Amino acid sequence: MKKINVNTTTNNYNIIINNSFDLLQEHLIELGLSNKKICIITDDNVSELYLEEVYSIISKISDKVSYIIIPHGEVNKNLDTINNIYNKLLDNKFDRDSVLVALGGGVTGDMVGFACATYMRGIKFIQIPTTLLSQVDSSIGGKTGVDYKGYKNVIGAFYQPMLVYINTMTLQTLPKREFNAGMGEVIKHGLIADKNYFDFINTNINKINTLDNEVIQNLIAKSCIIKSEVVSQDEKEKGIRAILNFGHTVGHAVEKLLDFKLLHGECVAVGMIAAAYLSHITMQINIDELEEIKQCIKGFDLPTKIDKLDYVTIFNDLFYDKKTINDTLNFIILDGIGNCEIRSDLHKQDILSAIKYIL
Amino acid sequence: MKKINVNTTTNNYNIIINNSFDLLQEHLIELGLSNKKICIITDDNVSELYLEEVYSIISKISDKVSYIIIPHGEVNKNLDTINNIYNKLLDNKFDRDSVLVALGGGVTGDMVGFACATYMRGIKFIQIPTTLLSQVDSSIGGKTGVDYKGYKNVIGAFYQPMLVYINTMTLQTLPKREFNAGMGEVIKHGLIADKNYFDFINTNINKINTLDNEVIQNLIAKSCIIKSEVVSQDEKEKGIRAILNFGHTVGHAVEKLLDFKLLHGECVAVGMIAAAYLSHITMQINIDELEEIKQCIKGFDLPTKIDKLDYVTIFNDLFYDKKTINDTLNFIILDGIGNCEIRSDLHKQDILSAIKYIL
Repeated sequence: MKKINVNTTTNNYNIIINNSFDLLQEHLIELGLSNKKICIITDDNVSELYLEEVYSIISKISDKVSYIIIPHGEVNKNLDTINNIYNKLLDNKFDRDSVLVALGGGVTGDMVGFACATYMRGIKFIQIPTTLLSQVDSSIGGKTGVDYKGYKNVIGAFYQPMLVYINTMTLQTLPKREFNAGMGEVIKHGLIADKNYFDFINTNINKINTLDNEVIQNLIAKSCIIKSEVVSQDEKEKGIRAILNFGHTVGHAVEKLLDFKLLHGECVAVGMIAAAYLSHITMQINIDELEEIKQCIKGFDLPTKIDKLDYVTIFNDLFYDKKTINDTLNFIILDGIGNCEIRSDLHKQDILSAIKYIL
Repeated sequence: MKKINVNTTTNNYNIIINNSFDLLQEHLIELGLSNKKICIITDDNVSELYLEEVYSIISKISDKVSYIIIPHGEVNKNLDTINNIYNKLLDNKFDRDSVLVALGGGVTGDMVGFACATYMRGIKFIQIPTTLLSQVDSSIGGKTGVDYKGYKNVIGAFYQPMLVYINTMTLQTLPKREFNAGMGEVIKHGLIADKNYFDFINTNINKINTLDNEVIQNLIAKSCIIKSEVVSQDEKEKGIRAILNFGHTVGHAVEKLLDFKLLHGECVAVGMIAAAYLSHITMQINIDELEEIKQCIKGFDLPTKIDKLDYVTIFNDLFYDKKTINDTLNFIILDGIGNCEIRSDLHKQDILSAIKYIL
């Protein structure tokens, strides 16, 4: 078991990393959730795998446990699903002291978090992420939200959970493609913040791909620490938190332009290649480092190029993302592996070259 | 001009009280809003009265000023109106650095605040309240939200503005019935927090009713101070902030059961009579104090009784409100005029008597 503390201005909470759900009960009790009205929200994939076990554990501390099964996938990450959650909470007379548990991947966590943030101006929120992406990234830091009119996460709120409980065994049932997509964010953590961590990932590609328990627990813990340290410094993304968007500027554009047919982490992988190439042509990493980054990404079968899009379309789309402020495009680029900086002064020509590099 | 500072855990901002819009421009500049993308949101009543003037002032600091006119009234305080705001913000490419200005009463302020809280996880928010209710109550403290399925403010967020700018001259165009409704909250502030303030209101009933400028500015300032002091202690209403709900437990039930045909402040007035009577039968205020409270409320033509409802219906409805926690009903009752306490141990029989008292 590993425990990581996340301390933001609005909340102080723990991430528990364990290889089972055995410690969930005691952590919920410690948070004072015994006998609360608790609703587990999960999707129609994850419900088949883990709802029964989690429901049974939570039922030991309260006889007011219910669940909602929502349809899976990014396509359902919208206000209609949120309204369905509101309706069920109202029907079941959930009040301000009630608790929602998000059991599933990033889509479920983001939506349940937004429902918690906005139902009665904020109710209690527990994250039980079951995908690598949600374990190392989306469950930490309080970004919640839904897609709207084709824009990813454009409606949302910052809202911190009371607890993130990670059972690494859930990765055993995760489709390999989704696991790999999660590795996109893991590699990002090494690239932006810790050269040793990047080397650890590179050295352990095989063990990671075969889900070696010790390596996986260390990897998730390290990624959680990197993410939570950044988030603790800048909860509302006024400054430093933006470095977590490394690879996301181009990544989000690609994700949207391909109608969400590629997974988020796959788009981030391609976006990181573009950002790494941009770091190379602006003289901040050398060709060997660029190659090393590409090889690591390939080690998890992640895409390094995309087709079906032209560079002008991608470039134009960069200018409409939450990260765009006053028509200035902020790019996160590497300054060597393990360091990065936020830049708003890059030349259009260089950005275009970086986009062409992934086509 | 009066300036009151509100300091919450999430934001520190000023309330400016003035008898014109003359100081608005300098305060917006001081907040760094020059040249920002700014949208004024107002309703189809207030737009006729003040949009031109406010638009013209804000246009002096930015050439990217636009406006949205929403339909007035509680009946439009819903997610459809919020979605219409989102759509217009997206169409006009509003980003995270953009600003919304709520120009109007409580309904406008609550909705614009909620849109600000949830668009791109939070954008800049300015309140220009034009009704007494919004000036002394709803614009301060960051409660935002909309009604949903007949439940008042059940979907919402805590989100603080950057500035509250009150032009007391807007009360000149406010219908008298709405002014009186605002006085419901003003009287509440005296009752729960300050006997001298209650006496000031009682002594100045005529001057208040004729909008004497000095008395009105003092009154708004005092109410803003009382409200902001409570809110600063307990932004998220985990404890002390609940005292602001004095009169609201029964008030909200009546408001909902009468299908929002009475104004909020009118329902609060009736609710305060019920709560005052409850304070009397639990021996915490004497009959003279109860009478004094009723006379003050009558001084502003506010209702002290209602018809068309039976006491059982009202009683049952008390148990479903955001203030209900785990089926325990918290009541705010007076402990003498100018003091109050939160009680969860009241007898059902006493609560029923208090409800019967207003029928």
